[in-house]
Amino acid sequence: MTGMKKTTEKNLMVFSGRAHPELAEEVAGILGTDLVPTSAYEFANSEIYVRYEESVRGCDAFVLQSHTAPINEWIMEHLIMVDALKRASAKRITVVMPFYGYARQDKKHRGREPISARLMADLFKTAGADRLISVDLHADQIQGYFDGPVDHLMALPILTQYVKEKYGDQELCVVSPDAGRIKVAERWSAKLGGAPLAFIHKTRRTDRPNETVANRVVGEVAGKMCILTDDMIDTGGTIVKAAEALMKDGAAGVIIAATHAILSDPAVDRLKNCSAVEVIVTNTLPIAPEREFDKLTILSIAPLVARAIREVFEDGSVTSMFDGHA
Amino acid sequence: MTGMKKTTEKNLMVFSGRAHPELAEEVAGILGTDLVPTSAYEFANSEIYVRYEESVRGCDAFVLQSHTAPINEWIMEHLIMVDALKRASAKRITVVMPFYGYARQDKKHRGREPISARLMADLFKTAGADRLISVDLHADQIQGYFDGPVDHLMALPILTQYVKEKYGDQELCVVSPDAGRIKVAERWSAKLGGAPLAFIHKTRRTDRPNETVANRVVGEVAGKMCILTDDMIDTGGTIVKAAEALMKDGAAGVIIAATHAILSDPAVDRLKNCSAVEVIVTNTLPIAPEREFDKLTILSIAPLVARAIREVFEDGSVTSMFDGHA
Amino acid sequence: MTGMKKTTEKNLMVFSGRAHPELAEEVAGILGTDLVPTSAYEFANSEIYVRYEESVRGCDAFVLQSHTAPINEWIMEHLIMVDALKRASAKRITVVMPFYGYARQDKKHRGREPISARLMADLFKTAGADRLISVDLHADQIQGYFDGPVDHLMALPILTQYVKEKYGDQELCVVSPDAGRIKVAERWSAKLGGAPLAFIHKTRRTDRPNETVANRVVGEVAGKMCILTDDMIDTGGTIVKAAEALMKDGAAGVIIAATHAILSDPAVDRLKNCSAVEVIVTNTLPIAPEREFDKLTILSIAPLVARAIREVFEDGSVTSMFDGHA
Amino acid sequence: MTGMKKTTEKNLMVFSGRAHPELAEEVAGILGTDLVPTSAYEFANSEIYVRYEESVRGCDAFVLQSHTAPINEWIMEHLIMVDALKRASAKRITVVMPFYGYARQDKKHRGREPISARLMADLFKTAGADRLISVDLHADQIQGYFDGPVDHLMALPILTQYVKEKYGDQELCVVSPDAGRIKVAERWSAKLGGAPLAFIHKTRRTDRPNETVANRVVGEVAGKMCILTDDMIDTGGTIVKAAEALMKDGAAGVIIAATHAILSDPAVDRLKNCSAVEVIVTNTLPIAPEREFDKLTILSIAPLVARAIREVFEDGSVTSMFDGHA
Amino acid sequence: MTGMKKTTEKNLMVFSGRAHPELAEEVAGILGTDLVPTSAYEFANSEIYVRYEESVRGCDAFVLQSHTAPINEWIMEHLIMVDALKRASAKRITVVMPFYGYARQDKKHRGREPISARLMADLFKTAGADRLISVDLHADQIQGYFDGPVDHLMALPILTQYVKEKYGDQELCVVSPDAGRIKVAERWSAKLGGAPLAFIHKTRRTDRPNETVANRVVGEVAGKMCILTDDMIDTGGTIVKAAEALMKDGAAGVIIAATHAILSDPAVDRLKNCSAVEVIVTNTLPIAPEREFDKLTILSIAPLVARAIREVFEDGSVTSMFDGHA
Amino acid sequence: MTGMKKTTEKNLMVFSGRAHPELAEEVAGILGTDLVPTSAYEFANSEIYVRYEESVRGCDAFVLQSHTAPINEWIMEHLIMVDALKRASAKRITVVMPFYGYARQDKKHRGREPISARLMADLFKTAGADRLISVDLHADQIQGYFDGPVDHLMALPILTQYVKEKYGDQELCVVSPDAGRIKVAERWSAKLGGAPLAFIHKTRRTDRPNETVANRVVGEVAGKMCILTDDMIDTGGTIVKAAEALMKDGAAGVIIAATHAILSDPAVDRLKNCSAVEVIVTNTLPIAPEREFDKLTILSIAPLVARAIREVFEDGSVTSMFDGHA
Repeated sequence: MTGMKKTTEKNLMVFSGRAHPELAEEVAGILGTDLVPTSAYEFANSEIYVRYEESVRGCDAFVLQSHTAPINEWIMEHLIMVDALKRASAKRITVVMPFYGYARQDKKHRGREPISARLMADLFKTAGADRLISVDLHADQIQGYFDGPVDHLMALPILTQYVKEKYGDQELCVVSPDAGRIKVAERWSAKLGGAPLAFIHKTRRTDRPNETVANRVVGEVAGKMCILTDDMIDTGGTIVKAAEALMKDGAAGVIIAATHAILSDPAVDRLKNCSAVEVIVTNTLPIAPEREFDKLTILSIAPLVARAIREVFEDGSVTSMFDGHA
Repeated sequence: MTGMKKTTEKNLMVFSGRAHPELAEEVAGILGTDLVPTSAYEFANSEIYVRYEESVRGCDAFVLQSHTAPINEWIMEHLIMVDALKRASAKRITVVMPFYGYARQDKKHRGREPISARLMADLFKTAGADRLISVDLHADQIQGYFDGPVDHLMALPILTQYVKEKYGDQELCVVSPDAGRIKVAERWSAKLGGAPLAFIHKTRRTDRPNETVANRVVGEVAGKMCILTDDMIDTGGTIVKAAEALMKDGAAGVIIAATHAILSDPAVDRLKNCSAVEVIVTNTLPIAPEREFDKLTILSIAPLVARAIREVFEDGSVTSMFDGHA
Repeated sequence: MTGMKKTTEKNLMVFSGRAHPELAEEVAGILGTDLVPTSAYEFANSEIYVRYEESVRGCDAFVLQSHTAPINEWIMEHLIMVDALKRASAKRITVVMPFYGYARQDKKHRGREPISARLMADLFKTAGADRLISVDLHADQIQGYFDGPVDHLMALPILTQYVKEKYGDQELCVVSPDAGRIKVAERWSAKLGGAPLAFIHKTRRTDRPNETVANRVVGEVAGKMCILTDDMIDTGGTIVKAAEALMKDGAAGVIIAATHAILSDPAVDRLKNCSAVEVIVTNTLPIAPEREFDKLTILSIAPLVARAIREVFEDGSVTSMFDGHA
Repeated sequence: MTGMKKTTEKNLMVFSGRAHPELAEEVAGILGTDLVPTSAYEFANSEIYVRYEESVRGCDAFVLQSHTAPINEWIMEHLIMVDALKRASAKRITVVMPFYGYARQDKKHRGREPISARLMADLFKTAGADRLISVDLHADQIQGYFDGPVDHLMALPILTQYVKEKYGDQELCVVSPDAGRIKVAERWSAKLGGAPLAFIHKTRRTDRPNETVANRVVGEVAGKMCILTDDMIDTGGTIVKAAEALMKDGAAGVIIAATHAILSDPAVDRLKNCSAVEVIVTNTLPIAPEREFDKLTILSIAPLVARAIREVFEDGSVTSMFDGHA
Repeated sequence: MTGMKKTTEKNLMVFSGRAHPELAEEVAGILGTDLVPTSAYEFANSEIYVRYEESVRGCDAFVLQSHTAPINEWIMEHLIMVDALKRASAKRITVVMPFYGYARQDKKHRGREPISARLMADLFKTAGADRLISVDLHADQIQGYFDGPVDHLMALPILTQYVKEKYGDQELCVVSPDAGRIKVAERWSAKLGGAPLAFIHKTRRTDRPNETVANRVVGEVAGKMCILTDDMIDTGGTIVKAAEALMKDGAAGVIIAATHAILSDPAVDRLKNCSAVEVIVTNTLPIAPEREFDKLTILSIAPLVARAIREVFEDGSVTSMFDGHA
Repeated sequence: MTGMKKTTEKNLMVFSGRAHPELAEEVAGILGTDLVPTSAYEFANSEIYVRYEESVRGCDAFVLQSHTAPINEWIMEHLIMVDALKRASAKRITVVMPFYGYARQDKKHRGREPISARLMADLFKTAGADRLISVDLHADQIQGYFDGPVDHLMALPILTQYVKEKYGDQELCVVSPDAGRIKVAERWSAKLGGAPLAFIHKTRRTDRPNETVANRVVGEVAGKMCILTDDMIDTGGTIVKAAEALMKDGAAGVIIAATHAILSDPAVDRLKNCSAVEVIVTNTLPIAPEREFDKLTILSIAPLVARAIREVFEDGSVTSMFDGHA
């Protein structure tokens, strides 16, 4: 038969945008490789330029970018990086967005709004993304927004492991700051051996509708160490108020735990000064050293992301990393 | 200039599948038109055949089908109807699915599952659908699954209007049968002038994890007429257990209200025999006359769907039908 | 150079829907593997649920389903299986449909009909199918309906081999039950060493148009063993009438041979009681044991499908299996 | 409300490629308009250039081209015309190809062939075609190759009307030159009040396979005026041999009738010298005046195409032009 | 016939992003309408939120945004606005970008670069744009990057009209600051009645390659009023150096004219202090009042954009606005 | 785990259309393989037929065709070849078009023109092309027209190497025949160690606009050996006039060098009789032996194309072949 045969090799290459290179370096380090040398900068009018300094032909590309502020800047850089990989003949492009930008605009709350979370999925598909990896999506349905495989990682094992080791000898209680997000707290409870649940219920006075809102604690928290959990902390308003309500109800203490530390102003001040004894987050988003504070604990998401990349590269199982949930 | 000019007219035509023609006829009647005569039947091997008996060229087509059991049959008929319209030069095709089939598979609960709700959106797009109209989607995010405009209607005004008229003089309380769905109850509460909220919390015994589950009522229900709300009633298990829990907690009575009356076996028996005084649903799905029972009240969704179709046809506003939420 | 290299392996995995698992098991057995363990069932409202019990990441997936009644059920299951594979990162998805559902609606016989055969191709493409394998398409043009490679297998060698061995010593004649399908008979004739051809011509009386239809035998059949061939037997009406016409014209005997045994009622009764000495079909579609009858011979298509899968997996040649025709 | 309203007008514009402008002019004339002035020529290296001399913004464009030899030249021009219309903001583009080029490559006769008929449909879609109009497709399934509406016109009423008027007083018989195309003859027979059918059967000698081929007439033709029908005449070999066979079998005379007069060499010589008394075709393809011959009758397809364009433009019914078949 | 007919109306609506609302208001004012009231702001983490305060169903939407710094912010807002319009059932969406962002990355200057100009076209298409309007694209080929109609406007008539009126009595000369852009200067020359051309040639010393670069003036400029033209002024380095070279060669004076006034730092300082007597630009991009300087003249592009929108809305001709070039 | 593993092999196969098989054979020879045996011919009506004589399943296909006159013929054959490969399960299809047909129609010079260069990219994508390889595109932006990777090769090293060896001892000067194409000359200059540049400026007399056009040489050419460079020579008019202008200005001699030798009539006559001492081209396009002339030198592009194919096949770097520019 005509032709020339050759055994096929695949080549894992890790790329990083400029939003959070430390995380990407940590991931690459765990994988035992280096980040691909990349030029990236802005032109005078703020247009972004990207170029890879090495051949990427035929590679299995994993492109990391943290969708932190200025978020549109970094998302656009992410898209441009994907375009450059596609045109340079990368074989497969996996977009790794530890925090999925615009995830909260995942539905039309009112008429004539965009569904920006779906739009982001489509933009990355258009740029050339074959697959996505993300951590703790704001809503599970977002997985369905991308037309292709999405590996949805969970920070839960990392966070609960830390809490168990440090607070395992205390009487724990898992608290959701919002009734709508109690399912996350249920998963925490299960991981913590069935710790009791509670949550904060925002109530309106029935006699004076739309006027007073109280944060009522639902569940028994008195004397317990409460773990307040959410997927993200943005300005910190809701979660800090929840912490105060818990303390008022006699909690022995409050630990705040969340995957994504957006920490927009005035989150740092609020958290620093709130009654929580510890604030546990991961580094899906960068936190400037000057914004760190004493009771803030940052756990690294890098081992999780690195393991997922390895499984994807080696055709292993990501699902098995999470007992079937992924 | 070369050419022949002509004022453009648009022509609204309403089509119905065979799953629930009564609803479609009611809708067409309100609009002041007839259903387009259509041949539809199965071949010996159960393949579906569809043909329109009138020219549909250039029409603004609204194709109704209720996704009831056997649901795959009716969804396939729906798809085939859209294909036939596309090939027969309909100008615009709006798929009207009062109940969105497979809506509950809107995410991967575990690895290696499909996201069938997204798949359905894509199948209809492929067949030729330009837009969708649906009522009370199981999750708002599903609106983002379709690559095009989706008019998301709400049965809330119809259901609350009925409740207000009949039970407005009693002390009401809105109850969600599941913590994860309390947002729907909040909308009810707002519509009922700020009625207090409660919900059922499924708890696991902390000493014996994974063993006993109790339905605990959270909120004050004693002496109140409780309105148990959900988007759909399938086998009725959850909602009937919730009703019993409410009665045990001293509720003055329980009214069950839901948009979609799937009523799979043994829902009818369960509802008939439960302690609720009334079960209020809409006719987004057909209910066979022999399955109706005394305390079942079926409100028609047809005026809502008809008005939405008219607004869509006349370039009016669907959002304004729902105070901005649509 | 940056990166981590690894030799690429491919992994063949065979999946089966619930319509005809026996065929899939036979195919997997010939290939020397097992079917991938799969959960599949219906929810109360008849929605289908599917989940794979093993990692399928990176696999070369072959998904078999027989499009038998209830056909919409099984096609939808087939589509959902493909969706789940796509989202679970299967590398390539080959849909194997031994009988292509809706193949007979391959054109608009009249205005405002669907072209469901094209629609099916598009639905599978949308769900994520990369390629199709099918046996004896109703029209060769259907191969062009799918936007991708289609391996079109032919049962002819299997059927003719059987006939040659059993009836090779008799004077044979190949008969088409319909003038429009005489090309199939021509291929039979070639395979049987140039056996003479005949066909049944449905005539209308010229003096009374649209009234009487006669089945006239065209060709010399007297004293010959006639092999009546078609691609499928649905209700069996046409082919049984053809058999009678042949016997009336003095045929020594009639053998009915077809690839797809749809056998919708009353096909079994008709065939059982007709004058044919043997009815030879394949198992592209399941035949319930209680519907089998004495003179029915079922040849297995599994070796053919298994060989095609192996050729596809190993980049061999499917065309060469059929002397260039595939 | 914000905005500026205006009644929508649509504007029919007819465009013609250079392959057969006479037909396009005739069509435009019947519609009561002119062809849009268009520049079209070839550059020195045979690349085609096209430009419209008038604004086409917002128009309902009908672009005619006859796919005659050099067929690749004219198809490319057709594609380029569509591209120019799309980029110049035509509102809707209907490609009118009276003869569908590459229609005979509508399936893979053998492995590793293209399916060029499908490819053509996709190329026109890509260039910007919204819909197609064609006459007497070689296979009805080709209608399914285009992803959008296809109006499939039939020349049958035009051809049979002519035959009825001229030969209606004779004893007619409809003959298909090939068993595979007898369905066309059946439609002729129906239109001619149930004229008897016959066809030519190419037989191979069973004792010496692959050697001698005879054209055997099946059906009673002696003493009858035979109308030999096909969709197209290319080199004329098959149809002329069929005519000879009919005469040898005692036909009173032979009339050849076909929609598409490709007339590749040596068709004209063959037809001129054959025993047929008349050769009736349409002008879907251009016939150079010097190639016309005495017994050739060319009926115009223009009224049919013009009427279809008018129905499409005015949202009338094309199906009704053909008793439901279109 | 079944159905309800209605004359179709179209409704022009103009939308503006937040980058340059003054231009959009001017455009809307010329058209005699208002901008559609729109909410737009950033969330704490810099994600953008957009909502229209009026129904946009069925409208002919024109969405203006100036791609100025921070350009990724404004492009993302532009994309989100289009998504919201699509989902709110706008009938047609025309993206108006007076300056096309990322136009200079219109090719790969080196391997492994993106082609961001193509990416932008694809992103807007994906978001839902049906058509584009832009002014003076950096390369004409960019028009081909968008898969749909692009109306390419030219500021030339506005700029040359101003120059003719003010400097028409002097001896003029048109100068291109770069050999690669001399075609623009040629169009200026034609519009100015055949004014002589010159250009600046960047030369390298042949004896010492890659070392010294000189700006050599090619053409006769002594004693002439030189109009230095380009499509955009970014940091102003090239054009200011060109002005100095012209003065050194004895030019009577220099006028700088460009369509897009990006004016990134230190452009304003450079231009203020250079020898040019006047700098003429348009307002395709916003110029903060505090950055304006004495010899800067800003001509409004609004009448041109407004006229193009009107022609597009009314199916007039944009090409005719530019003597055939558009 | 279920499944059957196998190491993946890839298989390079080279295919050639009929426009220029010599070039393809040379390329295959350098790669150490043969062209895949292919049947290709025209039917009587000029439709093209193609079939591969060997299995191509799973291969890495490189399909060469030179877009020479009759160019539409050869482009269509190229498209059909791609379609056949796609349907025969080639794994990856790289279209190799040494000269990109219709490259000069890369923008709308006037309104209502096509952008045929973009159309070609889309047609090949539609047919099934995954990637393109081309040499010296008329405009670099064309690389952005294809939605996928494009390897853009440059003949520059081949041409300059030849010139350096033969004329390196003379005083050289690089001349562009058109101001718009001076960038190509700059690359030549750099490759020739900084040879001085000149170009031909077409001027119009300012006193009599649109009347007299003169070819003015800009730069010092007296006494130098001038290398006139362009990407292509079509009819040769421009370049021959440029050569005369150079001689008139005292050039020591003129060498014409271009990548693509279209040589449409009367190019051969013009070049033969012009004052250039040598005309150097490559064989991206075939040149019939009888059209060759004494001073014509044809350098083979085959080594370059072969090396690019090898790099693409082996996941090497094409960019590195051109010092980063590709």
